[in-house]
Amino acid sequence: MASFFPASLENLIDGFASLPGIGRKSAQRLAFHILSQPGGEAERFAKAVLEARDKVHSCPVCQNLTEDGLCAVCASENRDRTTVCVVSEPRDVLSIERSREYKGLYHVLHGSLSPMNRIGPDDLRIRELLERVAEGGIQEVIMATNPDTEGDATAMYISRLLRPFDIRVTRLGFGVPVGSNLEYADDATLLRALEGRREM
Amino acid sequence: MASFFPASLENLIDGFASLPGIGRKSAQRLAFHILSQPGGEAERFAKAVLEARDKVHSCPVCQNLTEDGLCAVCASENRDRTTVCVVSEPRDVLSIERSREYKGLYHVLHGSLSPMNRIGPDDLRIRELLERVAEGGIQEVIMATNPDTEGDATAMYISRLLRPFDIRVTRLGFGVPVGSNLEYADDATLLRALEGRREM
Repeated sequence: MASFFPASLENLIDGFASLPGIGRKSAQRLAFHILSQPGGEAERFAKAVLEARDKVHSCPVCQNLTEDGLCAVCASENRDRTTVCVVSEPRDVLSIERSREYKGLYHVLHGSLSPMNRIGPDDLRIRELLERVAEGGIQEVIMATNPDTEGDATAMYISRLLRPFDIRVTRLGFGVPVGSNLEYADDATLLRALEGRREM
Repeated sequence: MASFFPASLENLIDGFASLPGIGRKSAQRLAFHILSQPGGEAERFAKAVLEARDKVHSCPVCQNLTEDGLCAVCASENRDRTTVCVVSEPRDVLSIERSREYKGLYHVLHGSLSPMNRIGPDDLRIRELLERVAEGGIQEVIMATNPDTEGDATAMYISRLLRPFDIRVTRLGFGVPVGSNLEYADDATLLRALEGRREM
């Protein structure tokens, strides 16, 4: 069945299927969709891929994705340069910006430590973070990696590397999500919520 | 928030988000993934899109997708040319081929009638089917459009157009799926299964 579709179509299906979270059936549907679009839709899509690939690079300071020299956050004059929030992925910056609360800078690791997937410290932008801290001026590093095993391990690993520096290292607060229902909270979250309880 | 990511990255996210079944969050994940791949992965993907777009066209007989003059089924000498199975999408040909039972030819409509989505008879390859039948030699047309409202309507519409020709027009059998559990069969399917009951 592998050669049922024309070779170039199979190739496109393979391309889609290699993307995360897209199975063989979805890949077929996407490939058919792209080919069925009239008027240069496929060309525009291919161009978008190439252009993003050409133009987008990491911000030399925070490693977030940008087209310009510095990213918008690092280039802004209204941000608190004494605080750095460490996240795993560029999309996490967007999530934290959405809270409209955080005014400091970021550092994007581009991944989490994951021995299972052979992702070690050298595969993340940890060295760049240490260099930033070593330059001085940073007073607090907030570890905002994901609240899962890999995110926790990454936060723990980095916090140890930061111990020699005279700065505050904090971790995002864990607990029950706002607007959720205790009934559906899992045990680990409830445990963390109890540990993180505060005076009223 | 629209301009939070670099413009070319936003553009790529828009490109992914315009594909069927891909929401904004998934589109972000796919775009980040493509940009994070080392060694020309993005270029290969863009090339696959363009190449498929350039090479793949409809088979002049059955309208299925092909790179060559005729598609593999129409070009084969081992197929029964008196029977034509009418399906909505190229992927449906694959499904029916998988049964290893069908030995006739196909006709791909490239869609279903859908007044809600403004898809009328002229948007489907119905005229091409009528021309094939008018040429003679076809003895049976099997309507294998999807067993849903749009697929049923399309099958009904085409079967009326085929009435003037002296051929058999059949519809795929409906009923409970093999290996399934009656408990979970929906009412409409059970009704069709009862209507389609056979002597044992």
